[in-house]
Order: sequence, then structure tokens, then C-alpha cells
Amino acid sequence: MVAACLVFFMQAGFAFLEIGLSRGKNAGMGIAKILVNFSIASLIWWAVGYGLAFGGTATFFGDSGFFIGHGTNLAGSEVDSATLGHFAFQLMFLGVSLAIVWGSTLERIKFGAYIVFAVVFSAVIYPLIAHMAWSGGLLSRVGSGVQDFAGSSVVHLTGATAALAAVVFLGPRKGKYGPDGKPRPIPGHSMPLLGLGVLILWLGWFGFNGGSTLGTGGNAFAEVIAVTNMGAIGGVLGATLLIWLVSRKLDVGMIGNGAIAGLVAITAPAGFVELWAAPIIGFVGGLIVVAGVLAIERKLDDPVGALSAHGLAGIWGTLACGLFTSERLAAVGEPGLFYGGGLEQLGVQAVAVVVTFAVVFGLSAITFAVIKATIGLRVSEEEEDAGLDITEHGMYGYPEQFIPAPELIGVGSSRPQAATAAAPVGSTSEVPA
Amino acid sequence: MVAACLVFFMQAGFAFLEIGLSRGKNAGMGIAKILVNFSIASLIWWAVGYGLAFGGTATFFGDSGFFIGHGTNLAGSEVDSATLGHFAFQLMFLGVSLAIVWGSTLERIKFGAYIVFAVVFSAVIYPLIAHMAWSGGLLSRVGSGVQDFAGSSVVHLTGATAALAAVVFLGPRKGKYGPDGKPRPIPGHSMPLLGLGVLILWLGWFGFNGGSTLGTGGNAFAEVIAVTNMGAIGGVLGATLLIWLVSRKLDVGMIGNGAIAGLVAITAPAGFVELWAAPIIGFVGGLIVVAGVLAIERKLDDPVGALSAHGLAGIWGTLACGLFTSERLAAVGEPGLFYGGGLEQLGVQAVAVVVTFAVVFGLSAITFAVIKATIGLRVSEEEEDAGLDITEHGMYGYPEQFIPAPELIGVGSSRPQAATAAAPVGSTSEVPA
Amino acid sequence: MVAACLVFFMQAGFAFLEIGLSRGKNAGMGIAKILVNFSIASLIWWAVGYGLAFGGTATFFGDSGFFIGHGTNLAGSEVDSATLGHFAFQLMFLGVSLAIVWGSTLERIKFGAYIVFAVVFSAVIYPLIAHMAWSGGLLSRVGSGVQDFAGSSVVHLTGATAALAAVVFLGPRKGKYGPDGKPRPIPGHSMPLLGLGVLILWLGWFGFNGGSTLGTGGNAFAEVIAVTNMGAIGGVLGATLLIWLVSRKLDVGMIGNGAIAGLVAITAPAGFVELWAAPIIGFVGGLIVVAGVLAIERKLDDPVGALSAHGLAGIWGTLACGLFTSERLAAVGEPGLFYGGGLEQLGVQAVAVVVTFAVVFGLSAITFAVIKATIGLRVSEEEEDAGLDITEHGMYGYPEQFIPAPELIGVGSSRPQAATAAAPVGSTSEVPA
Repeated sequence: MVAACLVFFMQAGFAFLEIGLSRGKNAGMGIAKILVNFSIASLIWWAVGYGLAFGGTATFFGDSGFFIGHGTNLAGSEVDSATLGHFAFQLMFLGVSLAIVWGSTLERIKFGAYIVFAVVFSAVIYPLIAHMAWSGGLLSRVGSGVQDFAGSSVVHLTGATAALAAVVFLGPRKGKYGPDGKPRPIPGHSMPLLGLGVLILWLGWFGFNGGSTLGTGGNAFAEVIAVTNMGAIGGVLGATLLIWLVSRKLDVGMIGNGAIAGLVAITAPAGFVELWAAPIIGFVGGLIVVAGVLAIERKLDDPVGALSAHGLAGIWGTLACGLFTSERLAAVGEPGLFYGGGLEQLGVQAVAVVVTFAVVFGLSAITFAVIKATIGLRVSEEEEDAGLDITEHGMYGYPEQFIPAPELIGVGSSRPQAATAAAPVGSTSEVPA
Repeated sequence: MVAACLVFFMQAGFAFLEIGLSRGKNAGMGIAKILVNFSIASLIWWAVGYGLAFGGTATFFGDSGFFIGHGTNLAGSEVDSATLGHFAFQLMFLGVSLAIVWGSTLERIKFGAYIVFAVVFSAVIYPLIAHMAWSGGLLSRVGSGVQDFAGSSVVHLTGATAALAAVVFLGPRKGKYGPDGKPRPIPGHSMPLLGLGVLILWLGWFGFNGGSTLGTGGNAFAEVIAVTNMGAIGGVLGATLLIWLVSRKLDVGMIGNGAIAGLVAITAPAGFVELWAAPIIGFVGGLIVVAGVLAIERKLDDPVGALSAHGLAGIWGTLACGLFTSERLAAVGEPGLFYGGGLEQLGVQAVAVVVTFAVVFGLSAITFAVIKATIGLRVSEEEEDAGLDITEHGMYGYPEQFIPAPELIGVGSSRPQAATAAAPVGSTSEVPA
Repeated sequence: MVAACLVFFMQAGFAFLEIGLSRGKNAGMGIAKILVNFSIASLIWWAVGYGLAFGGTATFFGDSGFFIGHGTNLAGSEVDSATLGHFAFQLMFLGVSLAIVWGSTLERIKFGAYIVFAVVFSAVIYPLIAHMAWSGGLLSRVGSGVQDFAGSSVVHLTGATAALAAVVFLGPRKGKYGPDGKPRPIPGHSMPLLGLGVLILWLGWFGFNGGSTLGTGGNAFAEVIAVTNMGAIGGVLGATLLIWLVSRKLDVGMIGNGAIAGLVAITAPAGFVELWAAPIIGFVGGLIVVAGVLAIERKLDDPVGALSAHGLAGIWGTLACGLFTSERLAAVGEPGLFYGGGLEQLGVQAVAVVVTFAVVFGLSAITFAVIKATIGLRVSEEEEDAGLDITEHGMYGYPEQFIPAPELIGVGSSRPQAATAAAPVGSTSEVPA
């Protein structure tokens, strides 16, 4: 349960990674977004999602455990306190997957779209994938079963694939592409907050991967944490090396995303591979995220690089099991290629990737298409210029930096730049006064 | 003990919630305040508070365990390492309760007032309430005993009631009320920091409520965490819905306070209610905090909304036990109204609320009156204008944003706005140079 | 292992303490630095450091456990999952010690210097000290063995001594000393971020000290946490009192450093002393850090005060064992002076301090001298003026505060001060456009 607490805290990690990579005019909404999204996900997970995911061992969905509580029926047994712990722990995984969706949509999506998609994702899309891989469903029956220890595929690829669907329907931020069609950098407003997000995520990942040793005792937990850490540092080193070779600068965002990519990549193999493999898997993840971000931004505007960090690195991590899983640790599936298992497990892993991507992309695209056709997916151009904080939330995230001091009670006299300040874009009627 | 660590971290949660809701000129002092307050509370709790709270089962105060250490006497037994753990865990609860007091006093209270009140609160007020409810004292003898699992009343209502006393003696911030007597918004300077505070508090609450399952094993801990989380998300959803209905904006501060109110409300019932009741209790807490903030600010200036989030939601949470406590979980007291227990437990809970409020308000009011009459409670108008950072702590929390660049060594050339900057309010003699 | 997670999070604590005390133009690089440093340390620790530190009981170095993994040889035994946990926990200690080195070098050191020194420190310097004190090496054989429960000397003094060597070779920041040779304050840009760092460190320290009760059960863990907390609060109170007496201001940085110094001081004694001694040890640590910062800055530019907080307080904490260690708790070494143990243990502790300082200073000085003579230790004067963010990392940590809005896509219209902004120091070719 301590692991569940750490995984919960990853919500803060995602929030600050996204806030740091947003412009200052969109810095406050990240807080409202993460709170509301996680709350909707929790409610839906309690009502239907958990039951669909874990309430049985059918091919696609479970059929019990809805509105879960002490004493209710789950796959023929009465729910006890321990099961409620499992419910809460798995909820945190759903929360992570849903949080991944939104980083790519920053600075231009309507708040209402979050709400609608969060319901569909928590009620249908995520439970389907989790059930197929982790509760005796389709993917657990391919070959000797897919290896995805803590969710490179189930959690990360799922979130990133939904993000891809969102970006396709949303389009890029205004100004992201020049008249020549070339991408232009839109730097986030705070590298310290980005870094806070990355470090919180790293911490939370110890719970994320370590907690998946449920019931196997403290020593397996210890080994998984050691493996997870070595994956993360591999990602940092891979991304640092590649971005330095490419640009001769040590880009802070890229290095942070290297850590994330290393963690994503080691998530599927964390319980299946020996320690020596972890920095290699992470290092490749770090290379992938840098190359991926540079390649993807030519066509798609992904402000935080989630498509690369969670999507491409998630695919790599899932496949890596088919290469590195050792005989000692292959509790599910077969040893990987490097341990004499041949290509069989690698094939199973590839099937899992393809199925996960296809199912999630299809369902997400339908959902976003419906949102776009009904309540609308994107804010107006004026709202995008003014920033979502003032237009949807009624106040800037940093009022003193965006509102002329005379409009702010008691602030003016100590803000030197106020003397020469022009009016902000938001009309003053939007400033509480 | 891991729970104690998480509850300690709530100090950071309170600090950042308060800092985020302060203006930038008062952003640094929150750090000094939280460190010094918690330190004084720890020292006093060690010397006398813990003994008065837990050193026996008398009606009002314990009488042993002062200057607690290994081998000292506590209620007739020798203190061992486990008891020192209990001492530390309960200290963190005191720390939370004391932290709640100060959010309502932001931006105008003297630092010295913190110190004096922290001593009185840690030595007398909090130990008295904790003893009466949790150590065989008065409130544990009303009916079958008051139900307050982790302190909606003992911790939260106590802190908020002391805050109310402080606000009454302090008065509002300059400029909070217009010439027509109507309240004017004074937006905090950083929604990201507010959000950081909320998310840290949410994390810490898992320790706060979960840790109160002391010795009952991991599964009860798991269930309490599931319940706590569902209370929190109920609060977010209730507050989000109500503020949107009222203003058509998704106010970040209100949504954050919704999470806090949901958590406060579920604190008393966390170990007594079934999972289904948690989102309902939290949701009502979320409605209460929005309505409470809007109503209270007509008369009282409570910059962070603590009177509503901890006070009103704390009352609601305490009463909610009398409605929702289930037979299975009523380890203390009787089942609630909805479980056939009738109105008895609800009455007990109401008594606890009234006694807690009356005792804390009376003692706190006396203390603040004495402070006001002696060392003074409020900074001068000039100090309030300049901000507490520069006047009491000798430096702004964000020097580069408040001091013209030429005064700052080596910063000037890279700060574009410096060219046109006017002097800050603090005279330059206050700027170290 | 939960303790290991908390100690990992101390990396975030160091990052934000340092970022808060840096100027805004050097705020982003702290993130890149902490990620890359920790990653290098992890890799080297895995390859050679852990084996040299814990792979046997020779006088200076271990000789097994290199490239550690499940089943490899460590001092004649096969490594199992529990040993991998020990590997990971001790890695976090190395990470703390290395993080301490860099605070004193802020705002002027080349990134390349981090990389080279991190390798040497992780491969040789730290393993040597850890082995001598904690793995049957030289210092564990002096008298009845040195008492350093969690590393006042091994971790903190080691880091601070390396920092001293760095500062000697680096020299002060430009502008730190006036034409008269007197030190001038260079205030850090964000007290809230400094405070975040301090509070995260405090939390992590519970894991740092508490986790060192490895295998002795939960109650010892509880007692150590109570002791650790009382040390920390002693430090806050000591520093607060002294800085207020000296300056009549409650300097936020000094109070924060007081907490750190209290924690550093209680680190060696945490498992050896009774609860009553902890606030005293911490209080003296708090006095030392304030006096130390004021004295040291007359000659050496130490932007974060690490030489005092980790060095002087680390020495004090190590010596304090020789005074306060109780008979009950002297699992290693002899009781201290105040428990009738005479001066013997105090002498052993003094030997540990002298040996640690001499060895670390010598090896670090050689390393920094070589770095200075080869790749260079310090950035150019122009780079120091412009800030390390833009020169080494290609973008400011807060782009919107340092780049004129017209250069930033889509930000301009909502940034009032942009209208009058001059060009930043970094040429616009360095601004992605």
C-alpha cells in the first residue's frame, strides 16, 4: 500500500512535468486538470472499470465487482480489505495511464474534452487492455502469455496511443509550425518545475514497478527497485549523450524525458530481467526518446514528448522482454532471445504491442471524433492566445506576472515593471476587481 | 512509521498551499514559518504535550510521560521504542493541526505571534482535545464514545477554530474590502505551488488516515487508503461542480480546496464507513467548502479558505460518522443512522463538535487577546504594504522580481525589465548591498 | 526499501535547495546536473564502487562484487535479492554524498567537471571512506570502532570536504567580493524552492537514518525517526535564534540551513543516543551552521552554505557520539563521555574526522587539479554573466523571464513587460527561433 501511495504521487509528477513545459499563461490549469481527471477516473473505476478489468477471466472484460465494496461479489468471491487494496493500487495505474494522454494536448484542448474522454477511457478502454493482459484475457493466452510486469504496454503505450489519437484530431498549437512548415520550439516556462515532475515520477516509479511484486515478499521488491533505478539512469545517459551529439547542448527537457523513457522501458521487464540488462534497456530508451521527439515534431505537435517517452519507449520496453527475460525470472512466458528462448516470446510481445495499439487507437479516435463533432475539442484562437488559465479558469496561474499591478490589490507598489505595463490580453472584465 | 513520514511531509503541503495563495511579496516567509512552528511544536510536545495528551486516562489531561524518553514513565509503564514511535506519529498530527491555524492569518500577522501561540497550542490546547477524544478523556465517555478515526474534529476542527479566533483579532488584509464593504479577490501568486501543496497533502493524508490503523495490520490500512482516496475525489467533484455552476469558471483554488475538504471530511469516518459512503461524504465536503468560502469572505478575510476546508468540512466529517458508520466497522461507538443505529451516535458526534469548538475557541481567543495586548498581533501598515519577506526576513522570496536588477549583483544584464524598473517599496537599505 | 525510495528523493531535495539559492539565470541547469550526476554515480557504483566498498573486509577496499548481479560473488557468497536491495540502498547514500559536493560550486563550474569528478568520486573516494568505516576497514578498527550510524562523517563530511577542494580550485563567483575584499550577498532567486528542497530533505532523512536500522525491526526504526526529527528541530531553533540575535532578521536561507545542519549532526548519533540528547545535538548544529556560513564567506564563496551545513555540522555530529552515546545503544564502540565512557570514544571519533577529511581532501584536490589543467574547471566570464542555462543547456530555466516576448512564439501579447524589454545577454541565435 505504500507503493500505492507513491504511485498516487505520480499524479503530481505528471502535473509538474506538464506545467513546466507549458507557457506561463497555461500554468494553472494543469492543477485543475490533474485533480478533476483523477477524480473522474477514480469514480468510474469504482463503479465499473475495476470490475471490467479484474472481475473474472473472460477474453475481453470481467463481469463482476461493479460498485465494489467490502462483501460485494468479485469473480465469485466476497471482496475483503485486501481486495480493496488491490482496487486502490490498480486505480493508481489507471490514473497514470490517463495522465499520459493529456501531455500531448496541452495549451489548446477544451476542459470539457478531458471529462468526456476520462469517462470513456476509465470505463472501457483501459479496463479492456488491463483485462486482456493481466486478468486472464486475450493477451495472456497468446503463446505462454505476454510479459508486461508493470505496464510498459498496458499503462504507458495505452496512454500514449490515446494521446496520439488526440493530437491527430486536435492539430498543432498556433505558431508551432512556421510558414515553411518547419517546427519551431515553444519552450516551456519553468525547467525547475519540469525537473520536479521528473524526480517525483522517478520516486513514484519505485512504487509502480516495486508494488507489482504484490505478495512476493520484500526481497523481490528490493530487486525490482534496483532494476528500475538502473533502467532510469540508463535513460538519462542515453538521452544526454544523443542530444549532446546532435546539438552540443545539454537540453534539460530532453534529459528529463530520457529519465522517463528509461523508466517506461524498464517497466515491462522490471521483474523479468537481470540487473545487467536494465541500464542497457534504459539506455536504448533514452536514445529512442531523443530521436523520437526530433522526428515526431516534424509532423505532430507533442508539447511534452509523451508520444516518444511513453509510446516509443513503451513499445521498446515491451519488446525488450522478448530479448532479455532470464530463465530464473520468467514466471510468465518464456525466456528471451539472449537466454536461449528463441524468438517466440519476442513474437508474443510484438503481438501485444500491435493489439494494444490498434485497439486503443481505434477506440480513442472514435471517442475524440465524437467529442470534436459535439462539444468541440479545441478552444478558440482567441482563447489559445490569451491562455487557458484566464479563459477557462478565470485567473492566471501567476496573476502578478500577467495582470498589470494597478489591477491587483496591494501588489502594485512593489512590482517595478508595473509602471510600464500594458494591458494583458484577457479583458479586464475577466480580472476579478 | 512510514505513515509518520508521510504525515510529516504534510508540513510541506501546508507550506505550499499557503505560499501559492499568498502574494509574491509574502512568498518566502512561509518557509521560515513552517520550519519554526513545527520545531517549537516538536519541542513542546516532547516536554509536556505528549504526556498531557497520552500519559493516562483522566478526564482532561494525562499526568505522565513528560520529557519522554526510553525508560521514562508513561501511565505506569516504561517507555520503549514502540512508544517513541507513537510519540513521533502523534507529533505529526499536532504539527498538522498547528499548521492549519496559520493559513487564515497570512500576509499580516507578526512572526512573534506564531511563536507564542505555538507554545500554548502545543502545550495545552491540542493535548487537551486529543486527550479528551483519544485517550480515555471526556469525549470518549460520551455515549459509547466519539468516533473520530484520524481527527476531522481533533485535528482539523481544532486547527480551524484556533484560526477563527486569530482572524477575529487580526482583522482583514488591507484592501480586502472595498469602500462599499464588499470583498475583493486578492489572487495568490502561484497556482502551481498551490497545486503542489494540495497534491502533497493528499499523499500525506494516506499516512494520516492509514497510519491510524496502528497495529491492525496491512489490510485495514489498505481499506482505509481506498476510503480516503474516494473521499478526496468526492471533494474535488463536489467543489468543481458547484463553483462551475456559480461562476462558469473552474477556479483552481476552489478545486484544490475541494480536495482538501473531501479529505478533511473523510478523516473522522475513514475507519468506520464502507467504501460507497466515502465519495458521498467527500462530495458534500466539496459543496460545503465552496459555499463556505463564498459566505465567510463576506465578513472574514481567510486567504486560504481554511475556516471552510478544515472547519466546516471537519464538522461535517465528524457528524457524518453518526450517519454512515457501519455495524462491521463500529469498533468505537454505535452504527450510524443509515445502519439502524438511530440518532444516538449522531448526538455524540454533535457533542464532540460543540465541545471541541467551544474549548478551542475560548482558549485560543484568550491567547490571541493576550498576544495582541502585549507583543502585538499585526504588523504595521507599511510592513503589510512592503510584504513580510523584506520586513521580517530581510529579503524577498523572489529577489529578482522585486529588487531592481542594478541592485542585484550580476543579475542585471540578463533581466530585460530592469532597464525600466522603479525602486521597490523596501528602502534599499533593506537590500543587502 | 521504502527507506531507499525516500533517500532517492533527497536528490530532489538537493536539487531544489540549490536551485532556490541560485540566480534565475542558472535555475534550469540544476535539473540536468542532478539527473546526470546521479546516473553516473549509479553506473559506476554498480560496476566497481559497491564492490570496493562492501565486497570484503580488507583495510582499504573490497575486492569482489563488481558488476553486481543476482548470483555474482560478493565476499565469497552469492548475491541474492536482499543484497541487491543493500546495493540500491547504499547507492542512495553515495548519491547524497555526491550531491553535497556541488552546492558550493554553483553558477560557475563547467558541466564537464561534474562528469569527471562523479566518476572518480563514485569509483574511488566514496567507496574508500565507506569501506573504512562501515565494512570492516581501517576506521572500524580504531579503538572499539568508529560510531557513524548513518554517515555524518562517511556521507556528509566526505561530500563537504570534496566541495571544499572544488571551491579552492574554482574561486568565487564574479562579484561576490567587493573592491574592498568584503563579501556581498548574492541572494538566490526563489525561497519557496529552497524551502521545498529543505522539506524534501527532511523527509528523505527519515529514510536515511531510519533505513540504517536494516534488519533490526520496526521499533528501532521508530525510535531513530523520533531522534532524527528532534535533531532537525534543534537545528532550526539554534539557527533561528542565532541569526536573529546577529541580524534581527529571520533569514529564510539560514533557517533552512539550520534544519539541514541539525539533520547532518544527528546522522552519526541517530542510533546511539537517547531522545533527550537529540535536540541538543541539533541545536548546536544550528548554531554552528550560522556561525560557519558567516565566517567562511569572508574567504570562500559557498553559495548554499554546504561547507558549514554538511562539513562543520558533520564534524560536530561525529564528535557528538563520543559525548552522548548511551550504554544501552552502543552496539558499536563505547559509551560517550556523558555516560561514563570517558574520552576514549571521543578520540576514536576525532580520528575518523581527521582521516576522512585528509583522505577526501587530498584525493579530491588532485582530481580537481587535473580537471583544471585539462578540460578546465570554470566557465568563461561571459558565460558566467549570461548564466549557465543559456550557455550550456541552450535555453533559460525560465524563458519567459529572460527572453523578450517577441522572440517567444505566442507568448508576447500576454506579457506586459515585453513592450519595453531589452535584449538578453545570450545572442538571439542562441534563442531557438
